[in-house]
Amino acid sequence: MLSALALARDIDAGKLKPAQVIDLCVKAIAAREADVQAFVSLDLDGARRCAERSAAALVRQPLRGLPIGVKDIIDTADLPTEYGSPIYNGHRPKTDAAIVSQVRRAGGLLLGKTVTTEFAYLQPPKTRNPHKAGHTPGGSSSGSAAAVAAGMVPIAIGSQTGGSVIRPAAFCGVAGFKPSYKLLPTVGVKCFSWHLDTLGFFAASVGDVAFAAAAVADRDLCVDAGEVAAPRVSLVRTHLWPEATDDMRAAVENAAKAASAAGARVEDIVLPPIMEDAFRAHGIIQDYEAYRAFAFEYDRHRERMSGILRTMLEKAASISADQYDEARRVSKRARQALADIMAATDVLLTPSAPGAAPDPSTTGSPVFNKLWTLMGNPCVSVPGLRDAFGLPLGVQIVGRFGRDRAALAAASFMERALARLTR
Amino acid sequence: MLSALALARDIDAGKLKPAQVIDLCVKAIAAREADVQAFVSLDLDGARRCAERSAAALVRQPLRGLPIGVKDIIDTADLPTEYGSPIYNGHRPKTDAAIVSQVRRAGGLLLGKTVTTEFAYLQPPKTRNPHKAGHTPGGSSSGSAAAVAAGMVPIAIGSQTGGSVIRPAAFCGVAGFKPSYKLLPTVGVKCFSWHLDTLGFFAASVGDVAFAAAAVADRDLCVDAGEVAAPRVSLVRTHLWPEATDDMRAAVENAAKAASAAGARVEDIVLPPIMEDAFRAHGIIQDYEAYRAFAFEYDRHRERMSGILRTMLEKAASISADQYDEARRVSKRARQALADIMAATDVLLTPSAPGAAPDPSTTGSPVFNKLWTLMGNPCVSVPGLRDAFGLPLGVQIVGRFGRDRAALAAASFMERALARLTR
Repeated sequence: MLSALALARDIDAGKLKPAQVIDLCVKAIAAREADVQAFVSLDLDGARRCAERSAAALVRQPLRGLPIGVKDIIDTADLPTEYGSPIYNGHRPKTDAAIVSQVRRAGGLLLGKTVTTEFAYLQPPKTRNPHKAGHTPGGSSSGSAAAVAAGMVPIAIGSQTGGSVIRPAAFCGVAGFKPSYKLLPTVGVKCFSWHLDTLGFFAASVGDVAFAAAAVADRDLCVDAGEVAAPRVSLVRTHLWPEATDDMRAAVENAAKAASAAGARVEDIVLPPIMEDAFRAHGIIQDYEAYRAFAFEYDRHRERMSGILRTMLEKAASISADQYDEARRVSKRARQALADIMAATDVLLTPSAPGAAPDPSTTGSPVFNKLWTLMGNPCVSVPGLRDAFGLPLGVQIVGRFGRDRAALAAASFMERALARLTR
Repeated sequence: MLSALALARDIDAGKLKPAQVIDLCVKAIAAREADVQAFVSLDLDGARRCAERSAAALVRQPLRGLPIGVKDIIDTADLPTEYGSPIYNGHRPKTDAAIVSQVRRAGGLLLGKTVTTEFAYLQPPKTRNPHKAGHTPGGSSSGSAAAVAAGMVPIAIGSQTGGSVIRPAAFCGVAGFKPSYKLLPTVGVKCFSWHLDTLGFFAASVGDVAFAAAAVADRDLCVDAGEVAAPRVSLVRTHLWPEATDDMRAAVENAAKAASAAGARVEDIVLPPIMEDAFRAHGIIQDYEAYRAFAFEYDRHRERMSGILRTMLEKAASISADQYDEARRVSKRARQALADIMAATDVLLTPSAPGAAPDPSTTGSPVFNKLWTLMGNPCVSVPGLRDAFGLPLGVQIVGRFGRDRAALAAASFMERALARLTR
């Protein structure tokens, strides 16, 4: 994989030029893309031209001219944006999404658009898991996770409404970071659910996603300088623990032991029943809003939607305003309860997904992600572990709302602890 | 003016057909539009065709085939959408905004796009106040307010980020309703500030805006059936009271007396200092987000922006993430404080604007609206009063967050009390 941080350091040291980074990507794409199919479109020539022409200015900016992959539910004026749906074949937005402009302002180059599932829902995409072709890369940010895992780009942007950043990051063995709700603007991102949609980052390691997020958000989020203080970690199994595979349960418990051995205070905690209610509220809020967010497509073009999406929207039509309002009230109470719980800890530790990547007939289950998306807390999928068949497993660090840097720091601590474990 | 409720009742009684309502609009447009200039585009033939062809189905739907004007920052696939900016000359979105689909689902017909100020900011528009040509209709939903006031359409949709629904409603002497934050989806609405942007309605009276909102939002918001219980009303002058004209102060105080005479419990309240902090936080949040929401336009086309917008964005570039985060924390604390205050009352009574509509060199001041937009509470501008020169004055009812029906009921109560006062 290409480490964004390592590339940035080499650029700072004068050992590497932005155009040479593009060349590294081009080489990896030539070697892997035919099998992995992570991209919907590429602008290698454009990125290379820009890297050459503006090298002097780019290397002084936070992203140093590094290339970025952008999920194809995010509007770009210079490349087609099809939202993974035939309804938008050849669609070219007039305007870049805010996040794309933020990437450019930070000195990043748009390398290409990465595969999204249809409107970021559950229909499996063409992308394959770079670790093993018979497995899904996860969804819905399938191409973003796979492109980073295959070393084709150092940073990719995705989005999460259920579990679309943390789950594919875990399946592909890369770091994934879903920031606090609304830390990043979703202006120009195809909306699925306005209470849930959250942009996120993929990169080789936790330090790399923190570097990318810090640069794009223009915030103090970097965690690569010096030692990280040992966090207080709470292992939370939730009522979904039986849905995790034996390998995943062992991975989380081993991660807890590794963190403890590295000096972290680790304890078990049990969430109050309101959190189970909130887990169920997620689906009501998501589907009620999707029925409105996709009203135009559903009302005019439903014959060009996948069965899985159409069926969900059909059912969603009957969710009442009262049910939706009650789900939002539950969510609000749960957020308060979670804030109270987390006053006594730094982060929660929980699975990123039920296990390793399943076969490509699904994109896997977001069951371990939905609650945290609804709560809005920052989440990091920490790579480094594998199951019995050598497939990547991710463990998830959930931080306090608005404390994104602390979440990343704890995830980085965990990543180093896991490295000692597997060494 | 055309009362949506009265038209709907006539349709229900078989006395009026949807196509005849279109004819009423066509007639008013022929008489007034050349002077008022409320519309950017019209689809009179399309609306008429649809009203004739689908009459039987339309009259059974909540909006009964009534025509609607839609502010031109809201995407429409069938009519151009230019956001009031030359950057988007001739722009035709691929998709309707969610609110437009909701109008159609409720049996409303799109009559035309109404004038917005440039990107819903402060640059004065071409639209004139239907009551007196030498005065602004207010902004930024200038055309929506003016079109309703001139009787050219019974319902219009606008949006508010500072004071863009309540202020033009007051200046034009119509009812304006800004629902609770996120009651209506802003999917497909050009974003100015994602923490503030709120869609709203204009119609002839409070009962009419409630009818429109109930139909479009598919919620129990109607307040036209029977008597409304007398609300507890708190007159709140805020620290901005000195900015109101003598006429406006008298209007608010007379409204309080009228409500009291009609049986309401009216008392004065003073807001805690945190609300003043929140008032200032509004500008920081709005401008920080606008610098990101308009990144593409500012970075690539700033020469085609008005001076007033460009200058704001130039300044906004230097607002730090820390300042923004602090403003959000202030806002959160103020919301809690306001909820506590409002536990003992039903609604607040306060000016809709500093006074009547000023001359058209500005769109007037949103100073009496910004705080409530940030707080997210439902607001209603109640028409019925006039200043010494016969220009309309609006008084504002602010309800509890999420209690939109109660806010509309109290506003309706106030409207009737004012009618008795001016009779």
